Amino acid sequence: MSKGIISKDEDYSQWFNDLVIKADLAEYSPVRGCMIIKPYGYSIWEKIQAVLDKMFKDTGHSNAYFPLFIPKSFFSKEASHVDGFAKECAVVTHYRLKNDGEGNIIVDEDAKLEEELIVRPTSETIIWNTYKGWIQSYRDLPILVNQWANVVRWEMRTRLFLRTSEFLWQEGHTAHATAEEAVAETEQMLEVYANFAENWLAVPVVKGKKTSNERFAGALDTYCIEALMQDGKALQAGTSHFLGQNFAKAFDVKFTSKEGKQDYVWATSWGVSTRLMGALIMAHSDDAGLVLPPMLAPIQVVVVPIYKHDEELQNITAYVDGLSKELKAKGISVKFDNRDTQRPGFKFAEYELKGVPLRVAIGSRDMQNGTVELARRDTKTKETVQQAGLVDHIEKLLEEIQQNIFTKALTFREENTTKVDDYEEFKRLLDEKPGFLLAHWDGTPETEQRIKEETKATIRCIPLNNEQEEGKCILTGNPSTQRVLFARAY
Amino acid sequence: MSKGIISKDEDYSQWFNDLVIKADLAEYSPVRGCMIIKPYGYSIWEKIQAVLDKMFKDTGHSNAYFPLFIPKSFFSKEASHVDGFAKECAVVTHYRLKNDGEGNIIVDEDAKLEEELIVRPTSETIIWNTYKGWIQSYRDLPILVNQWANVVRWEMRTRLFLRTSEFLWQEGHTAHATAEEAVAETEQMLEVYANFAENWLAVPVVKGKKTSNERFAGALDTYCIEALMQDGKALQAGTSHFLGQNFAKAFDVKFTSKEGKQDYVWATSWGVSTRLMGALIMAHSDDAGLVLPPMLAPIQVVVVPIYKHDEELQNITAYVDGLSKELKAKGISVKFDNRDTQRPGFKFAEYELKGVPLRVAIGSRDMQNGTVELARRDTKTKETVQQAGLVDHIEKLLEEIQQNIFTKALTFREENTTKVDDYEEFKRLLDEKPGFLLAHWDGTPETEQRIKEETKATIRCIPLNNEQEEGKCILTGNPSTQRVLFARAY
Repeated sequence: MSKGIISKDEDYSQWFNDLVIKADLAEYSPVRGCMIIKPYGYSIWEKIQAVLDKMFKDTGHSNAYFPLFIPKSFFSKEASHVDGFAKECAVVTHYRLKNDGEGNIIVDEDAKLEEELIVRPTSETIIWNTYKGWIQSYRDLPILVNQWANVVRWEMRTRLFLRTSEFLWQEGHTAHATAEEAVAETEQMLEVYANFAENWLAVPVVKGKKTSNERFAGALDTYCIEALMQDGKALQAGTSHFLGQNFAKAFDVKFTSKEGKQDYVWATSWGVSTRLMGALIMAHSDDAGLVLPPMLAPIQVVVVPIYKHDEELQNITAYVDGLSKELKAKGISVKFDNRDTQRPGFKFAEYELKGVPLRVAIGSRDMQNGTVELARRDTKTKETVQQAGLVDHIEKLLEEIQQNIFTKALTFREENTTKVDDYEEFKRLLDEKPGFLLAHWDGTPETEQRIKEETKATIRCIPLNNEQEEGKCILTGNPSTQRVLFARAY
Repeated sequence: MSKGIISKDEDYSQWFNDLVIKADLAEYSPVRGCMIIKPYGYSIWEKIQAVLDKMFKDTGHSNAYFPLFIPKSFFSKEASHVDGFAKECAVVTHYRLKNDGEGNIIVDEDAKLEEELIVRPTSETIIWNTYKGWIQSYRDLPILVNQWANVVRWEMRTRLFLRTSEFLWQEGHTAHATAEEAVAETEQMLEVYANFAENWLAVPVVKGKKTSNERFAGALDTYCIEALMQDGKALQAGTSHFLGQNFAKAFDVKFTSKEGKQDYVWATSWGVSTRLMGALIMAHSDDAGLVLPPMLAPIQVVVVPIYKHDEELQNITAYVDGLSKELKAKGISVKFDNRDTQRPGFKFAEYELKGVPLRVAIGSRDMQNGTVELARRDTKTKETVQQAGLVDHIEKLLEEIQQNIFTKALTFREENTTKVDDYEEFKRLLDEKPGFLLAHWDGTPETEQRIKEETKATIRCIPLNNEQEEGKCILTGNPSTQRVLFARAY
């Protein structure tokens, strides 16, 4: 417990909050539910952005930018869409302030907008209104566009990174000539997200489809990746929606096919957000602080010199300069912390807190012996190794750490995924050993809703390529053909 | 005149608008004054961002993210700041919509905010409120933070990229222990902007300080870079502000110095925006379309095959594959346009319109002769060159084009910068030969204001390291020690 982080076994929720704040990732702002992402937190988000952006471009997408504001009338055009978002919209009603003559700044009532503007909670409506102008024939399709942006969904109960009124995200919006092509795009982007989650975030995910209750407002199908946090709660880490022709119909976007026929355009949208930061933190960290997978760590290796005299430091510095150069040549980021204002023990605790995957400590005796001390953040193990061959050793170790963090999370998930056939057992497990529960469900929204009300557990997804087996619904006893994934969720 | 762009000599303003739209850079949205940045336009902005972001990081800055919304009371704390921005603020007053029972979506009056929120027009207030929590002692200084964000300043008269209600920008906000350090930071960032403008945008700029009339609301000193567009109007391309202790005082941000004394913190802020896109377009383009400097062109080289039979295309393709690989290895971006739906002439016009710096055309005869045809966008000259040594030749040509575009803009500026000592002549030049006018000014805001009212020309800046010379104010005849830079401006 460094710098006053509470143990996660004692109070998981407080542990998370402490960690986010003490590790300099983010803090609350005075604006209700809006957060400030601090430089260290933002540097992780920048890495996430860079990796995803390359993946999007490698799959043929381009970035663009659409307005922050959406006219209220647009927003209302797709019925289920507005139902889904109306209750959490920030609304701009005026465009000017004025001085009231007594020194107070007030809203100028003469500057009331004719039509209110909604701060985008998501951009389907403004984008499909735009696509109407971009699409005439099949030659204009597909449109493969992504946007990196801020969005606002007014939240009453907020948590840093997990649920904030403003958050940062990307939203892909694509337009296609056929349903098949749109479904293929939806599935492709789910694969991109799953690949990113497992191989960069080191978070294993279940890929699946949402039930109709949990679908995106306006989608025909919502695909998702679901991850399990260390407290046994699920976190939806990304979604990819097949929107059918709903938005094309709402905004009258038609195209002429090769055969000369007119039809509405098929759509997808897909997004991940700064919520991924929450997943990253909650999946791996411990009571000493963050544990970052090397693939996303802003600092992969930190070097701390241990010395008494300036001469010793000079010696160490000369060696570290060479080492850093070699590491950087391999694309490994390294920080040499030669501050003389802090003791090594303080620095050790700081980099533990900040989740730096590998620490190299070098003292005068090490310099004499041609060794260094390596400390892994993930296992908290130390070893003394030869300076000869160190760069290759570090490179291998970072790969090993990345793999180990993933394996640990996967093992945790496996140990906390249970098949259950009895409703009382289902409820007991949720309270006593929370995790993923695989249970039969009769397929009706009513049953799903009742289970949610009685247990606070929701169907996270119907896993893709789900095993088919006969069974009875855990609540109603009605027949079922497959188990679905239940959990309490963030 | 391709694709219906009007000639810039005929109607410069219409030419600009046509160009932005026909070259697929941006378009207006249905939201008053907000634009949609299309994929091709955004890809240029991404290059601008990448270069600047690296420059900011190389000078020690980190990125962070602050809320979109600013409580009205914060906004009012710095008096001149609120005066400067109050008249152009989008104001959020409600956080929910509802159905009125008759099928209409209306603002829910029960969800009125206690305190209105301003959509940030700039972030000094919310950031300095945050810095209060980050700064206790000199050890916490300097803070060198930048933010990439969208901002909103309600505009009645808008122009794509140049003046839009929402725009994208970066805003640096730094905190320092001494005035000297803050001034040095302000000047450093001006240099960064000038370097970027001249060596990437290929736009020569005059570095200077604003007069008090034109200063940023809340600054002690505003430094700027001023560029001259092809119609002889000036465009402010970036600003860097020395804010003194104004915001520290407004938000009570004090620090304890090394000597144990308490003092207010010193501040700077600096920003450039999507307005740079406007500068880029207006400084270099012609009646055939965009002219992009190679350093910022999303596609630097386009290859167009000219063929009749598939076999010819296969031959050409095999060669182009090798060429592309070699170009990419040198970091040169290349596009092979092998669409069979469009004729070469159509493609030539399209890439001219989109400003691709270099076009390579290859026909069957070229393949036999071991040659290609190169066409430069900047000079519109063509040459037939050997395939042997082509990659090196292209690399050199791109450098030459970058240099030539800059030199051309510099020559234009020199030819359109005039020393003038007579007010009638001053007015005549503004109408007949608009450009930069170097004229004496008596140093008073009143004179500046009168000149502005009478001529629509403003003092763009007092150039740095300005030559000192005795003279008489062009309006009042009062004594003056230096000429200042006048122009009509965007």
